[in-house]
Amino acid sequence: MTRVPFAEMKQTIKTAFIKAGMPENKADTCAQIHTESSRDGVASHGLNRVERFVEYLLKGWVVADAEPSLVVNLGALETYNGNLGPGVLNALFAMNRATEMAAVNGIGMVGLQNTTHWMRGGAYGWQAADKGFIGICWTNTESCMPPWGAKSEAVGNNPFVMAVPRKKGHVVFDMAMSQYSYGKIWGLEGKNQRLPFPGGFDEEGKLTDNPDIISKTRRVVPIGYWKGAGFTIMLDLISALVSGGLCTAGIDQNGKGSCGGCSQVFIAIDPLKINTQEMIDHVLEITVAQLKQAVPAEEGNEIFFPGEQAAKKRKENTELGIPVDDAIWNKVKELAG
Amino acid sequence: MTRVPFAEMKQTIKTAFIKAGMPENKADTCAQIHTESSRDGVASHGLNRVERFVEYLLKGWVVADAEPSLVVNLGALETYNGNLGPGVLNALFAMNRATEMAAVNGIGMVGLQNTTHWMRGGAYGWQAADKGFIGICWTNTESCMPPWGAKSEAVGNNPFVMAVPRKKGHVVFDMAMSQYSYGKIWGLEGKNQRLPFPGGFDEEGKLTDNPDIISKTRRVVPIGYWKGAGFTIMLDLISALVSGGLCTAGIDQNGKGSCGGCSQVFIAIDPLKINTQEMIDHVLEITVAQLKQAVPAEEGNEIFFPGEQAAKKRKENTELGIPVDDAIWNKVKELAG
Repeated sequence: MTRVPFAEMKQTIKTAFIKAGMPENKADTCAQIHTESSRDGVASHGLNRVERFVEYLLKGWVVADAEPSLVVNLGALETYNGNLGPGVLNALFAMNRATEMAAVNGIGMVGLQNTTHWMRGGAYGWQAADKGFIGICWTNTESCMPPWGAKSEAVGNNPFVMAVPRKKGHVVFDMAMSQYSYGKIWGLEGKNQRLPFPGGFDEEGKLTDNPDIISKTRRVVPIGYWKGAGFTIMLDLISALVSGGLCTAGIDQNGKGSCGGCSQVFIAIDPLKINTQEMIDHVLEITVAQLKQAVPAEEGNEIFFPGEQAAKKRKENTELGIPVDDAIWNKVKELAG
Repeated sequence: MTRVPFAEMKQTIKTAFIKAGMPENKADTCAQIHTESSRDGVASHGLNRVERFVEYLLKGWVVADAEPSLVVNLGALETYNGNLGPGVLNALFAMNRATEMAAVNGIGMVGLQNTTHWMRGGAYGWQAADKGFIGICWTNTESCMPPWGAKSEAVGNNPFVMAVPRKKGHVVFDMAMSQYSYGKIWGLEGKNQRLPFPGGFDEEGKLTDNPDIISKTRRVVPIGYWKGAGFTIMLDLISALVSGGLCTAGIDQNGKGSCGGCSQVFIAIDPLKINTQEMIDHVLEITVAQLKQAVPAEEGNEIFFPGEQAAKKRKENTELGIPVDDAIWNKVKELAG
């Protein structure tokens, strides 16, 4: 396994983005976030997305120099048009505005319409927590999952993020609505391997843990079956209505690739407007202690809080370099060459 | 199956609550919500909870005449102390305040600390939607589920609700974090029946759909395995920090029964501050149409949006009477007698 130092990966990605037409400062920030995602163990939305992002820039599905513009200002709630700018930059802007409003009002909410793929949603949870705010955000997507009881795709696989700042390591949660991503399924395909738990349905509508079959049927199973299937509909509707933007059915008609013109919600809350620091520390530390004291299902199991393993991975990869898939890394170097 | 008219059920529950020490107007509202839950098909949090609620009143775990009191006012975010008053009344108050703030600011958020069991969370989603607001709310609970990788209970099974107002029938989503409730598991126990999907773990840590086994191990499976297990931790932390109240580990130490002294979050958003009514209708109707047009997995399947089946059940039970478990109905009549 090749490991690449953070600075080298970031510089390479940045050069690729500049070559694809991004202004230098925007390319720098996007490369930083892509590299951080790979560093934290989420290469699927980091290095491994560089090629597709470049393709979208070249097609004009992402507008390299577009900036978000204010649509509605209600004090603690603002909406912006992302103008199809880079999803990462629009999302960073939106979460930052939410924290600025929360610093004044205790809560700040931003609806962002007409934006593009935000890559790794967790990035904006870490962003809020690093600034000392509780962060909640989600996005809608194009259709890529069947609703409950159906076998054709009609709902999005909408990522949902929650983050709580903690002195000893933030608690950050980032999930999509399918049990497994297509990235995970495709990664195991054709290798005679199984998913740890059932991840989709076969042609007969039976649950299966066989990635080859799920890749063919495209019937990934939502988390909690009918529950995740319902949750994803709510995230879609609320992101469209809070931003004044497109819902999943609208994105499907938009024809600008994955998440092209999507809608997002960002919420920030300042816990120090409600609690003393001592109260906050107490809630966090008795919760973490209670998790750590739970009886392991199998001897030697450690019980983790959300975000704990990403932080461990971050430390390891910062020290040793970020692991890469050689073919993908060579492709990105080619794009930068 | 016995069916009871709405008015008769409500009057009986109301009388039982008054006999347990509730003021008449509070008993009326609580009885209305309990009866509505049974009418909508959620008897587990309606009629079937009357006996336990009366027990909590008599023990002083719920303070019959307590009112919520303001703790922090930040304009679009307020926090209240529920003073251990009836959870239903505190939650109705909190969602109403959230909608009042949203009517002014576009968004309103209420953190509610030191409250008691809110019964059916969906009630407050319907409440927001009936007033024309998007509603989001959740509560924490005492420990009743193992965290991921553990076999002892250390996290709550925290209900989460989202609602969107729709002219042709609101879209309302109400889920807890376990795949099945203990009510569902206990209802099938000892009857040689199976759950539709795996609902927990056996003694060896293998997934099982056998309710008898799960009832013994008390290892219910979270929705999406590690995903629901993480989500429930976030809901807990954020409800405690937004309300300045207890987290699950604190409720466990509180010793006032299920949800005694719990923390809740209520968010309301006014979609008409961001969209025209035409925009709202368009988003909702193309989404519902896309769901209805999905290819059924089995011939004859209808694809439902969240809340659609509750509305159907409501219509049926309003016309025919609300189905009851005879033993439970007789017990409630006894409490009212």
